[in-house]
Amino acid sequence: MTDKADKAAKLDAADELADLRAQFVLDDTVYLDGNSLGALPRSVPGRIEDVVRRQWGSLRIRSWDESGWWTAPERIGDRIAPLVGAAAGQIVVGDSTSVNIFKAVVGAVRLAGGGAGGREEGVGVRDEILVDATTFPTDGYIAASAARLTGCTLRPVAPDEVPRALGDRTAAVLLNHVDYRTGRLYDLPGLTAAVHAAGAVSVWDLCHSAGALPVGLDEHGVDLAVGCTYKYLNGGPGAPAYLYVRRDHQPRFDSPLPGWNSHADPFGMSTDYAPAPGAVRGRVGTPDILSMLALEAALEVWDDVPIEAVRTKSLALTDFFLECVEAYVPTGAVESVTPTAHASRGSQVALRCAEAGDVMRRLIARGVIGDFREPDILRFGFTPLYVGFGEVERAARVLGEMF
Amino acid sequence: MTDKADKAAKLDAADELADLRAQFVLDDTVYLDGNSLGALPRSVPGRIEDVVRRQWGSLRIRSWDESGWWTAPERIGDRIAPLVGAAAGQIVVGDSTSVNIFKAVVGAVRLAGGGAGGREEGVGVRDEILVDATTFPTDGYIAASAARLTGCTLRPVAPDEVPRALGDRTAAVLLNHVDYRTGRLYDLPGLTAAVHAAGAVSVWDLCHSAGALPVGLDEHGVDLAVGCTYKYLNGGPGAPAYLYVRRDHQPRFDSPLPGWNSHADPFGMSTDYAPAPGAVRGRVGTPDILSMLALEAALEVWDDVPIEAVRTKSLALTDFFLECVEAYVPTGAVESVTPTAHASRGSQVALRCAEAGDVMRRLIARGVIGDFREPDILRFGFTPLYVGFGEVERAARVLGEMF
Repeated sequence: MTDKADKAAKLDAADELADLRAQFVLDDTVYLDGNSLGALPRSVPGRIEDVVRRQWGSLRIRSWDESGWWTAPERIGDRIAPLVGAAAGQIVVGDSTSVNIFKAVVGAVRLAGGGAGGREEGVGVRDEILVDATTFPTDGYIAASAARLTGCTLRPVAPDEVPRALGDRTAAVLLNHVDYRTGRLYDLPGLTAAVHAAGAVSVWDLCHSAGALPVGLDEHGVDLAVGCTYKYLNGGPGAPAYLYVRRDHQPRFDSPLPGWNSHADPFGMSTDYAPAPGAVRGRVGTPDILSMLALEAALEVWDDVPIEAVRTKSLALTDFFLECVEAYVPTGAVESVTPTAHASRGSQVALRCAEAGDVMRRLIARGVIGDFREPDILRFGFTPLYVGFGEVERAARVLGEMF
Repeated sequence: MTDKADKAAKLDAADELADLRAQFVLDDTVYLDGNSLGALPRSVPGRIEDVVRRQWGSLRIRSWDESGWWTAPERIGDRIAPLVGAAAGQIVVGDSTSVNIFKAVVGAVRLAGGGAGGREEGVGVRDEILVDATTFPTDGYIAASAARLTGCTLRPVAPDEVPRALGDRTAAVLLNHVDYRTGRLYDLPGLTAAVHAAGAVSVWDLCHSAGALPVGLDEHGVDLAVGCTYKYLNGGPGAPAYLYVRRDHQPRFDSPLPGWNSHADPFGMSTDYAPAPGAVRGRVGTPDILSMLALEAALEVWDDVPIEAVRTKSLALTDFFLECVEAYVPTGAVESVTPTAHASRGSQVALRCAEAGDVMRRLIARGVIGDFREPDILRFGFTPLYVGFGEVERAARVLGEMF
């Protein structure tokens, strides 16, 4: 046994979260792509079978009440809330991440009194939206559309430059908590405070942080946030996303997608729109029940799992991976673009590498599953709920054999 | 056996679609609420189990390619296409009906060169959106938001008044093919032609017609259309909706929700948005795979079922129901608000009735499942794929016993 394998065995033996692995369907591959699609929780298949055969097949339309379908978006939102540091009643599940970003960015501009609608003689105009210049692309595309529709200008800026770019024309700022390529964790408390100091409204994309590390939405006064549920929350392919609207913003949250599900009296079938109070205001149309209830079952694994313990293990996993890469991979073959400082690291490691696409294909053929991101990034995600240290050692060892 | 029961038996014996019933999970209730949530097709549970256990559980991230997840929205769109009279390549599945209405109405205003962005000195301004004044509420709410964001005025008009209301300021017109309350079928070819004659762009909501009667999108030159899949298409609770963009409009279709899934090169991860050609341009974010693949399985029942035969049976069912209601229900107890003329009737019958909410509760307790719509409507939907004439007779007979 090598030194690293020996160390891995000791780390696994001391891992307080090790038992959680049994709650997932896994095999003999090393699955380091949970930051793209989380593994299947064992609680899901039986639940979905019940939803399909009994709730849909037998109860049919009655399930909207009797099986709790109607209230699923806010009920499941409350289940996600503690994982991102939110009190109940502020998160609603439904629609894709992209659609929720649209609701949030337009909503943020309106909360800031910004956009073309805010123009009055002699009153300062907030007509600028700042967006992370290195963002996952959909955030930028949707923010551009939100800017166009609200009469704002979109200005891409590096997150580090946001404090300098903020001003009295800034309406909203859309940022990623963790960069999808590099795995860099940004300073959510500090950047949110800077946005507030400028009188603007913050929107955070939590796709690559929720379920991997503490977010502290309430504690840090985040205004609006959006995240997906199919990465570290293991909700399944294309599972619905969620929208957080801080409680004190809710009465003024003015969604650009006011569907019948967000009406104060949806079955009153009124031609006039009256928004529901609370998080429900973020709903739109009929929720996709199968995907949503799969997510609900998947979230059961989090019962009694403190997110702080998850973070501790996550950092230990990425530390150990970097240590093993250094030991096994020939010098110069790869270069980590993930920050070494814990305060700036999410739960993934991104390695720059020549011929990265080809290297990843060969890794996958050897049973180490990560992914490739253009142009030259090998991306490895570490889900603390089911990844062990022995797997980390194996992944780095196999990677070393690629060169 | 009564006259009506005798007639029902004969109609059932002659029913060419009768065998299709065996493809659905049904019980001894009379399910006349398929216009709200279609019954479970027997093809669905096994498929979903495979999607969950094998595609997600074992193949995981590989399923985006190997299980065809990535292309599901357009593949399933092509499966819906013949049911609504569309050639392939014009329909994409995903998101809720409400979200698709938003894409379609904003897209329609832009296709018409309308809204605030169309204002130029000396050029006529198309700054009005017409909407069916009796529409299902979400269409009206979303159209109001689309109007607000594009600098248009929203004008609700009765569908019969649309030809008179159209003018050179009309940018877009949002209409329902079948009214959700009364079951009235509107003249899609005639109204579409009137919209075109005024130089405006039509958006049709097919929620209550697709799968129940021929729509003829291509034949009648409809510009944009939207529909749900959980009513007559039996896709399951909250199954994703679809968007039709007529082929010649696609190059200019300018979605207000340009997500990474509608990018010409989604994995290029470019910060600049370049829309994909074709129907894919209507996609937004990551599709909800479980709900979407349940829909795909559900659509198998349509193989070799001509929509004209479905329409013939649908009219026979509603004719016979009205005939039985007249025979069994005391005069004056109910009044049909559904047109008697076939050309103006969808696949449901709506009966106005005192204490309708209470009457429906008692009907349901007796095994006849319809629904109640405010303020005084008993609504019965007739899905030709699985409703038989004997059930129709029984439903009317039990209704008669309520008074």
